[in-house]
Amino acid sequence: MEFSSKLLERAVNEMSQLPGIGKRTALRLVLHLLKQPKEQSAMLADALQTMRNDIKFCKSCNNISDLELCEICSNPNRDETLVCVVEDIRDVMAIENTSSFKGLYHVLGGKISPMDGVGPHDLNIQSLVKKVEEGKIKELIFALSSTMEGDTTNFYIYKQIQKYNIFTSTIARGISVGDELEYADEITLGRSIVNRVPFESSLKS
Amino acid sequence: MEFSSKLLERAVNEMSQLPGIGKRTALRLVLHLLKQPKEQSAMLADALQTMRNDIKFCKSCNNISDLELCEICSNPNRDETLVCVVEDIRDVMAIENTSSFKGLYHVLGGKISPMDGVGPHDLNIQSLVKKVEEGKIKELIFALSSTMEGDTTNFYIYKQIQKYNIFTSTIARGISVGDELEYADEITLGRSIVNRVPFESSLKS
Ligand SMILES: [Zn+2]
Ligand SMILES: [Zn+2]
Repeated sequence: MEFSSKLLERAVNEMSQLPGIGKRTALRLVLHLLKQPKEQSAMLADALQTMRNDIKFCKSCNNISDLELCEICSNPNRDETLVCVVEDIRDVMAIENTSSFKGLYHVLGGKISPMDGVGPHDLNIQSLVKKVEEGKIKELIFALSSTMEGDTTNFYIYKQIQKYNIFTSTIARGISVGDELEYADEITLGRSIVNRVPFESSLKS
Repeated sequence: MEFSSKLLERAVNEMSQLPGIGKRTALRLVLHLLKQPKEQSAMLADALQTMRNDIKFCKSCNNISDLELCEICSNPNRDETLVCVVEDIRDVMAIENTSSFKGLYHVLGGKISPMDGVGPHDLNIQSLVKKVEEGKIKELIFALSSTMEGDTTNFYIYKQIQKYNIFTSTIARGISVGDELEYADEITLGRSIVNRVPFESSLKS
Protein backbone atom coordinates (compact mmCIF):
# COMPACT_ATOMS: atom_id res chain seq x y z
CA MET A 1 0.00 0.00 0.00
CA GLU A 2 1.43 3.36 -1.10
CA PHE A 3 0.47 6.31 1.08
CA SER A 4 0.50 9.93 -0.01
CA SER A 5 1.05 11.03 3.59
CA LYS A 6 3.36 9.83 6.36
CA LEU A 7 0.80 10.87 8.98
CA LEU A 8 -1.85 8.75 7.31
CA GLU A 9 0.54 5.83 6.93
CA ARG A 10 1.49 5.94 10.60
CA ALA A 11 -2.15 6.06 11.74
CA VAL A 12 -3.03 3.11 9.50
CA ASN A 13 -0.02 1.14 10.72
CA GLU A 14 -0.87 1.69 14.39
CA MET A 15 -4.54 0.89 13.82
CA SER A 16 -3.69 -2.34 12.00
CA GLN A 17 -1.75 -3.56 15.06
CA LEU A 18 -5.13 -4.36 16.57
CA PRO A 19 -6.26 -7.98 16.22
CA GLY A 20 -8.52 -8.64 13.23
CA ILE A 21 -7.90 -5.17 11.76
CA GLY A 22 -6.05 -5.47 8.44
CA LYS A 23 -4.49 -2.58 6.53
CA ARG A 24 -7.59 -2.04 4.40
CA THR A 25 -9.95 -1.92 7.38
CA ALA A 26 -7.52 0.35 9.23
CA LEU A 27 -7.47 2.72 6.26
CA ARG A 28 -11.27 2.78 6.14
CA LEU A 29 -11.47 3.59 9.88
CA VAL A 30 -8.81 6.27 9.70
CA LEU A 31 -10.40 7.95 6.66
CA HIS A 32 -13.69 7.92 8.55
CA LEU A 33 -12.03 9.80 11.43
CA LEU A 34 -10.71 12.37 8.94
CA LYS A 35 -14.28 13.13 7.87
CA GLN A 36 -15.49 13.59 11.47
CA PRO A 37 -14.83 16.63 13.68
CA LYS A 38 -11.37 16.73 15.28
CA GLU A 39 -13.00 16.22 18.67
CA GLN A 40 -13.91 12.63 17.82
CA SER A 41 -10.29 11.64 17.21
CA ALA A 42 -9.19 13.56 20.28
CA MET A 43 -11.76 11.81 22.46
CA LEU A 44 -10.90 8.37 21.10
CA ALA A 45 -7.19 8.99 21.61
CA ASP A 46 -7.73 10.27 25.14
CA ALA A 47 -10.12 7.44 26.11
CA LEU A 48 -7.65 4.77 24.97
CA GLN A 49 -4.62 6.32 26.59
CA THR A 50 -6.32 7.22 29.88
CA MET A 51 -7.79 3.74 30.13
CA ARG A 52 -4.45 2.07 29.48
CA ASN A 53 -2.64 4.26 32.00
CA ASP A 54 -5.18 4.49 34.80
CA ILE A 55 -7.16 1.27 34.81
CA LYS A 56 -6.76 -1.00 37.82
CA PHE A 57 -7.24 -4.70 38.38
CA CYS A 58 -9.18 -5.68 41.49
CA LYS A 59 -6.63 -6.80 44.08
CA SER A 60 -8.89 -9.67 45.10
CA CYS A 61 -10.42 -11.10 41.91
CA ASN A 62 -8.35 -9.45 39.16
CA ASN A 63 -11.47 -8.04 37.47
CA ILE A 64 -11.00 -4.70 35.73
CA SER A 65 -11.89 -1.91 38.14
CA ASP A 66 -11.54 1.80 38.76
CA LEU A 67 -10.87 1.13 42.47
CA GLU A 68 -8.58 -1.18 44.44
CA LEU A 69 -11.45 -3.57 45.08
CA CYS A 70 -14.04 -4.07 42.31
CA GLU A 71 -17.75 -3.39 42.78
CA ILE A 72 -18.53 -7.09 42.95
CA CYS A 73 -15.92 -7.93 45.60
CA SER A 74 -16.90 -4.91 47.69
CA ASN A 75 -20.63 -5.69 47.55
CA PRO A 76 -21.69 -7.06 50.99
CA ASN A 77 -24.69 -8.84 49.43
CA ARG A 78 -22.53 -11.20 47.40
CA ASP A 79 -21.69 -14.64 48.77
CA GLU A 80 -17.93 -14.71 49.27
CA THR A 81 -17.90 -18.45 49.97
CA LEU A 82 -18.87 -19.16 46.35
CA VAL A 83 -16.24 -18.32 43.73
CA CYS A 84 -16.58 -18.67 39.96
CA VAL A 85 -13.27 -19.13 38.11
CA VAL A 86 -13.23 -17.51 34.64
CA GLU A 87 -10.70 -16.82 31.91
CA ASP A 88 -11.22 -13.10 31.42
CA ILE A 89 -13.40 -10.17 32.26
CA ARG A 90 -15.68 -10.75 29.29
CA ASP A 91 -16.82 -13.91 31.05
CA VAL A 92 -17.58 -11.90 34.20
CA MET A 93 -19.65 -9.50 32.09
CA ALA A 94 -21.51 -12.37 30.39
CA ILE A 95 -22.36 -14.11 33.67
CA GLU A 96 -23.31 -10.84 35.42
CA ASN A 97 -25.66 -10.21 32.50
CA THR A 98 -27.66 -13.31 33.41
CA SER A 99 -28.26 -12.04 37.00
CA SER A 100 -28.15 -15.68 38.08
CA PHE A 101 -24.94 -15.69 40.12
CA LYS A 102 -24.54 -14.06 43.51
CA GLY A 103 -21.03 -15.23 44.44
CA LEU A 104 -17.66 -13.68 43.58
CA TYR A 105 -15.33 -14.23 40.64
CA HIS A 106 -11.70 -15.05 40.14
CA VAL A 107 -10.29 -13.92 36.79
CA LEU A 108 -7.34 -16.05 35.68
CA GLY A 109 -6.37 -13.83 32.74
CA GLY A 110 -6.23 -16.72 30.27
CA LYS A 111 -5.77 -20.47 30.30
CA ILE A 112 -2.77 -22.77 30.32
CA SER A 113 -1.62 -23.18 26.74
CA PRO A 114 1.87 -24.57 26.10
CA MET A 115 1.34 -23.92 22.36
CA ASP A 116 1.00 -20.18 23.04
CA GLY A 117 3.69 -20.22 25.73
CA VAL A 118 1.21 -19.66 28.57
CA GLY A 119 2.11 -21.60 31.71
CA PRO A 120 0.42 -21.70 35.15
CA HIS A 121 2.69 -18.90 36.41
CA ASP A 122 1.45 -16.51 33.73
CA LEU A 123 -2.05 -16.77 35.20
CA ASN A 124 -3.56 -15.62 38.51
CA ILE A 125 -3.62 -19.12 39.95
CA GLN A 126 -1.46 -18.65 43.05
CA SER A 127 -3.75 -15.96 44.45
CA LEU A 128 -6.72 -18.32 43.96
CA VAL A 129 -4.95 -21.17 45.76
CA LYS A 130 -4.11 -18.75 48.56
CA LYS A 131 -7.79 -17.77 48.90
CA VAL A 132 -8.74 -21.45 49.17
CA GLU A 133 -5.95 -22.02 51.69
CA GLU A 134 -7.32 -19.23 53.87
CA GLY A 135 -10.51 -21.24 54.19
CA LYS A 136 -13.07 -18.67 53.09
CA ILE A 137 -14.24 -20.52 49.97
CA LYS A 138 -16.80 -23.33 50.20
CA GLU A 139 -17.36 -23.93 46.51
CA LEU A 140 -15.28 -23.22 43.41
CA ILE A 141 -17.15 -23.22 40.09
CA PHE A 142 -14.96 -23.75 37.01
CA ALA A 143 -16.44 -21.71 34.15
CA LEU A 144 -13.63 -22.00 31.61
CA SER A 145 -14.28 -22.78 27.97
CA SER A 146 -14.53 -26.51 27.37
CA THR A 147 -11.41 -26.84 25.24
CA MET A 148 -8.25 -28.81 25.84
CA GLU A 149 -6.65 -25.70 27.38
CA GLY A 150 -9.69 -25.03 29.55
CA ASP A 151 -9.74 -28.62 30.80
CA THR A 152 -5.98 -28.56 31.45
CA THR A 153 -6.33 -25.36 33.47
CA ASN A 154 -9.27 -26.72 35.47
CA PHE A 155 -7.31 -29.86 36.28
CA TYR A 156 -4.14 -27.97 37.22
CA ILE A 157 -6.08 -25.79 39.67
CA TYR A 158 -7.99 -28.82 40.96
CA LYS A 159 -4.72 -30.60 41.81
CA GLN A 160 -3.46 -27.52 43.68
CA ILE A 161 -6.53 -27.18 45.89
CA GLN A 162 -7.57 -30.85 46.23
CA LYS A 163 -6.09 -31.20 49.72
CA TYR A 164 -8.24 -28.40 51.10
CA ASN A 165 -11.36 -30.47 50.51
CA ILE A 166 -13.69 -27.78 49.20
CA PHE A 167 -16.57 -28.51 46.83
CA THR A 168 -15.73 -27.96 43.13
CA SER A 169 -18.13 -27.87 40.19
CA THR A 170 -18.13 -26.97 36.52
CA ILE A 171 -20.87 -25.12 34.68
CA ALA A 172 -23.38 -27.38 32.91
CA ARG A 173 -22.81 -28.06 29.21
CA GLY A 174 -25.83 -28.82 27.11
CA ILE A 175 -28.17 -27.81 24.36
CA SER A 176 -28.85 -24.07 24.32
CA VAL A 177 -32.33 -23.11 25.44
CA GLY A 178 -34.48 -22.87 22.31
CA ASP A 179 -32.06 -24.82 20.10
CA GLU A 180 -33.16 -27.75 17.96
CA LEU A 181 -31.51 -31.00 19.02
CA GLU A 182 -30.69 -32.02 15.47
CA TYR A 183 -28.41 -29.01 14.97
CA ALA A 184 -26.41 -29.47 18.17
CA ASP A 185 -22.86 -30.76 17.87
CA GLU A 186 -22.51 -34.35 19.02
CA ILE A 187 -20.19 -33.70 21.97
CA THR A 188 -22.58 -31.16 23.46
CA LEU A 189 -25.53 -33.44 22.84
CA GLY A 190 -23.68 -36.37 24.38
CA ARG A 191 -22.78 -34.40 27.48
CA SER A 192 -26.33 -33.11 27.80
CA ILE A 193 -27.57 -36.71 28.03
CA VAL A 194 -24.87 -37.91 30.40
CA ASN A 195 -25.36 -34.88 32.64
CA ARG A 196 -29.15 -34.94 32.54
CA VAL A 197 -30.92 -33.28 35.47
CA PRO A 198 -33.99 -34.47 37.43
CA PHE A 199 -37.09 -33.22 35.66
CA GLU A 200 -38.39 -31.57 38.81
CA SER A 201 -35.27 -29.42 39.12
CA SER A 202 -35.63 -28.32 35.49
CA LEU A 203 -39.09 -26.99 36.29
CA LYS A 204 -37.63 -24.46 38.72
CA SER A 205 -35.45 -22.57 36.25
CA MET B 1 -23.42 -4.28 28.47
CA GLU B 2 -22.48 -3.74 32.13
CA PHE B 3 -18.93 -2.48 32.72
CA SER B 4 -16.99 -2.83 35.93
CA SER B 5 -14.96 0.28 35.08
CA LYS B 6 -15.92 3.72 33.74
CA LEU B 7 -12.54 4.00 32.00
CA LEU B 8 -13.16 0.75 30.18
CA GLU B 9 -16.71 1.75 29.30
CA ARG B 10 -15.58 5.07 27.86
CA ALA B 11 -12.85 3.45 25.75
CA VAL B 12 -15.31 0.87 24.40
CA ASN B 13 -17.88 3.57 23.64
CA GLU B 14 -15.40 5.74 21.75
CA MET B 15 -14.04 2.74 19.83
CA SER B 16 -17.52 1.62 18.83
CA GLN B 17 -18.15 5.01 17.19
CA LEU B 18 -16.02 3.72 14.31
CA PRO B 19 -17.98 2.29 11.38
CA GLY B 20 -18.42 -1.48 11.47
CA ILE B 21 -17.09 -1.74 15.05
CA GLY B 22 -19.83 -2.93 17.40
CA LYS B 23 -19.63 -2.93 21.19
CA ARG B 24 -18.38 -6.51 21.34
CA THR B 25 -15.60 -5.93 18.83
CA ALA B 26 -14.67 -2.68 20.57
CA LEU B 27 -14.39 -4.53 23.88
CA ARG B 28 -12.18 -7.18 22.30
CA LEU B 29 -9.86 -4.51 20.83
CA VAL B 30 -9.70 -2.52 24.06
CA LEU B 31 -8.96 -5.61 26.18
CA HIS B 32 -6.20 -6.47 23.72
CA LEU B 33 -4.64 -3.04 24.29
CA LEU B 34 -4.76 -3.66 28.04
CA LYS B 35 -2.62 -6.75 27.58
CA GLN B 36 -0.03 -4.91 25.47
CA PRO B 37 2.63 -2.51 26.81
CA LYS B 38 1.35 1.02 27.56
CA GLU B 39 3.47 2.31 24.67
CA GLN B 40 1.19 0.67 22.12
CA SER B 41 -1.89 2.55 23.32
CA ALA B 42 0.13 5.76 23.57
CA MET B 43 1.42 5.39 20.02
CA LEU B 44 -2.02 4.58 18.62
CA ALA B 45 -3.54 7.55 20.43
CA ASP B 46 -0.81 9.89 19.25
CA ALA B 47 -0.89 8.64 15.65
CA LEU B 48 -4.65 9.18 15.39
CA GLN B 49 -4.67 12.59 16.99
CA THR B 50 -1.62 13.94 15.16
CA MET B 51 -3.01 12.71 11.87
CA ARG B 52 -6.39 14.32 12.46
CA ASN B 53 -4.86 17.62 13.53
CA ASP B 54 -1.97 17.97 11.11
CA ILE B 55 -2.97 16.25 7.90
CA LYS B 56 -3.44 18.45 4.83
CA PHE B 57 -5.43 18.09 1.67
CA CYS B 58 -3.58 18.93 -1.54
CA LYS B 59 -4.73 22.41 -2.58
CA SER B 60 -4.89 21.30 -6.19
CA CYS B 61 -6.37 17.76 -6.23
CA ASN B 62 -7.66 17.35 -2.63
CA ASN B 63 -5.61 14.19 -2.14
CA ILE B 64 -4.37 13.62 1.42
CA SER B 65 -0.91 15.11 1.75
CA ASP B 66 1.69 16.22 4.28
CA LEU B 67 2.47 19.28 2.15
CA GLU B 68 0.41 22.01 0.44
CA LEU B 69 0.75 20.25 -2.90
CA CYS B 70 0.73 16.44 -2.96
CA GLU B 71 3.57 14.34 -4.36
CA ILE B 72 1.59 13.51 -7.47
CA CYS B 73 0.64 17.10 -8.31
CA SER B 74 4.19 18.31 -7.67
CA ASN B 75 5.79 15.60 -9.81
CA PRO B 76 6.99 17.23 -13.08
CA ASN B 77 6.86 13.87 -14.88
CA ARG B 78 3.09 13.57 -14.57
CA ASP B 79 0.86 14.75 -17.41
CA GLU B 80 -1.17 17.66 -16.04
CA THR B 81 -3.42 17.77 -19.10
CA LEU B 82 -4.94 14.40 -18.13
CA VAL B 83 -7.07 14.35 -14.96
CA CYS B 84 -8.75 11.32 -13.40
CA VAL B 85 -11.83 12.15 -11.27
CA VAL B 86 -12.28 9.83 -8.26
CA GLU B 87 -14.48 9.65 -5.18
CA ASP B 88 -11.87 9.37 -2.49
CA ILE B 89 -8.21 8.84 -1.79
CA ARG B 90 -8.56 5.07 -1.65
CA ASP B 91 -9.26 5.21 -5.36
CA VAL B 92 -6.08 7.24 -5.90
CA MET B 93 -4.15 4.57 -3.97
CA ALA B 94 -5.75 1.75 -5.97
CA ILE B 95 -4.99 3.36 -9.35
CA GLU B 96 -1.45 4.37 -8.32
CA ASN B 97 -0.91 0.74 -7.37
CA THR B 98 -1.45 -0.33 -10.99
CA SER B 99 1.34 2.04 -12.22
CA SER B 100 -0.73 2.49 -15.38
CA PHE B 101 -1.73 6.14 -15.05
CA LYS B 102 0.63 9.07 -15.48
CA GLY B 103 -1.83 11.98 -15.25
CA LEU B 104 -3.14 13.82 -12.20
CA TYR B 105 -6.18 13.17 -9.99
CA HIS B 106 -9.08 15.16 -8.71
CA VAL B 107 -10.60 13.81 -5.50
CA LEU B 108 -14.28 14.74 -5.12
CA GLY B 109 -14.63 13.53 -1.53
CA GLY B 110 -17.76 11.49 -2.26
CA LYS B 111 -20.56 11.36 -4.79
CA ILE B 112 -23.90 13.14 -5.14
CA SER B 113 -26.41 11.24 -3.03
CA PRO B 114 -29.68 12.98 -2.13
CA MET B 115 -30.57 9.99 0.07
CA ASP B 116 -27.52 10.68 2.26
CA GLY B 117 -27.95 14.44 2.03
CA VAL B 118 -24.87 14.90 -0.17
CA GLY B 119 -25.35 17.57 -2.83
CA PRO B 120 -22.92 18.94 -5.47
CA HIS B 121 -21.81 21.71 -3.12
CA ASP B 122 -20.63 19.20 -0.52
CA LEU B 123 -18.10 17.88 -3.04
CA ASN B 124 -14.98 19.38 -4.62
CA ILE B 125 -16.69 20.02 -7.94
CA GLN B 126 -16.28 23.79 -8.27
CA SER B 127 -12.50 23.56 -8.09
CA LEU B 128 -12.57 20.95 -10.86
CA VAL B 129 -14.75 23.13 -13.08
CA LYS B 130 -12.37 26.03 -12.44
CA LYS B 131 -9.39 23.90 -13.55
CA VAL B 132 -11.20 23.00 -16.76
CA GLU B 133 -12.14 26.68 -17.28
CA GLU B 134 -8.47 27.67 -17.01
CA GLY B 135 -7.82 25.52 -20.06
CA LYS B 136 -5.05 23.27 -18.77
CA ILE B 137 -6.98 20.00 -18.96
CA LYS B 138 -7.29 18.12 -22.26
CA GLU B 139 -9.01 14.97 -20.99
CA LEU B 140 -11.09 14.20 -17.94
CA ILE B 141 -11.45 10.52 -17.00
CA PHE B 142 -14.44 9.68 -14.80
CA ALA B 143 -13.44 6.84 -12.49
CA LEU B 144 -16.40 6.83 -10.09
CA SER B 145 -18.13 3.65 -9.04
CA SER B 146 -20.80 2.61 -11.52
CA THR B 147 -23.78 3.14 -9.24
CA MET B 148 -26.72 5.48 -9.59
CA GLU B 149 -24.88 8.03 -7.42
CA GLY B 150 -21.69 7.64 -9.44
CA ASP B 151 -23.54 8.11 -12.71
CA THR B 152 -25.43 11.13 -11.35
CA THR B 153 -22.17 12.73 -10.24
CA ASN B 154 -20.49 12.05 -13.59
CA PHE B 155 -23.43 13.60 -15.42
CA TYR B 156 -23.59 16.64 -13.15
CA ILE B 157 -19.90 17.39 -13.74
CA TYR B 158 -20.27 16.68 -17.44
CA LYS B 159 -23.03 19.30 -17.73
CA GLN B 160 -20.87 21.88 -15.93
CA ILE B 161 -17.86 21.47 -18.21
CA GLN B 162 -19.59 20.60 -21.50
CA LYS B 163 -19.16 24.08 -22.93
CA TYR B 164 -15.38 23.97 -22.60
CA ASN B 165 -15.19 21.21 -25.17
CA ILE B 166 -12.57 18.99 -23.56
CA PHE B 167 -12.43 15.24 -24.11
CA THR B 168 -14.16 13.16 -21.40
CA SER B 169 -14.00 9.42 -20.86
CA THR B 170 -14.97 6.83 -18.28
CA ILE B 171 -12.91 3.85 -17.21
CA ALA B 172 -13.74 0.62 -19.03
CA ARG B 173 -16.15 -1.78 -17.33
CA GLY B 174 -15.81 -5.42 -18.11
CA ILE B 175 -14.93 -8.88 -17.00
CA SER B 176 -12.01 -8.93 -14.56
CA VAL B 177 -8.82 -10.36 -16.02
CA GLY B 178 -8.74 -14.05 -15.14
CA ASP B 179 -12.45 -14.26 -14.30
CA GLU B 180 -14.73 -16.92 -15.76
CA LEU B 181 -17.45 -15.42 -17.97
CA GLU B 182 -20.18 -17.56 -16.44
CA TYR B 183 -19.69 -16.04 -12.99
CA ALA B 184 -19.80 -12.40 -14.13
CA ASP B 185 -22.92 -10.39 -13.33
CA GLU B 186 -25.03 -9.74 -16.40
CA ILE B 187 -24.70 -5.95 -16.45
CA THR B 188 -20.91 -6.17 -16.45
CA LEU B 189 -20.98 -8.88 -19.10
CA GLY B 190 -23.41 -6.87 -21.21
CA ARG B 191 -21.24 -3.74 -21.02
CA SER B 192 -18.14 -5.76 -21.82
CA ILE B 193 -19.74 -6.85 -25.11
CA VAL B 194 -21.13 -3.43 -26.05
CA ASN B 195 -17.79 -1.77 -25.24
CA ARG B 196 -15.65 -4.41 -26.92
CA VAL B 197 -12.20 -3.27 -28.10
CA PRO B 198 -10.36 -4.10 -31.35
CA PHE B 199 -8.44 -7.32 -30.87
CA GLU B 200 -5.17 -5.70 -31.94
CA SER B 201 -5.40 -3.12 -29.19
CA SER B 202 -6.02 -5.85 -26.59
CA LEU B 203 -2.72 -7.44 -27.60
CA LYS B 204 -0.81 -4.36 -26.44
CA SER B 205 -1.85 -4.47 -22.80
ZN1 LIG C 1 -12.98 -8.03 42.56
ZN1 LIG D 1 -2.51 16.87 -5.47
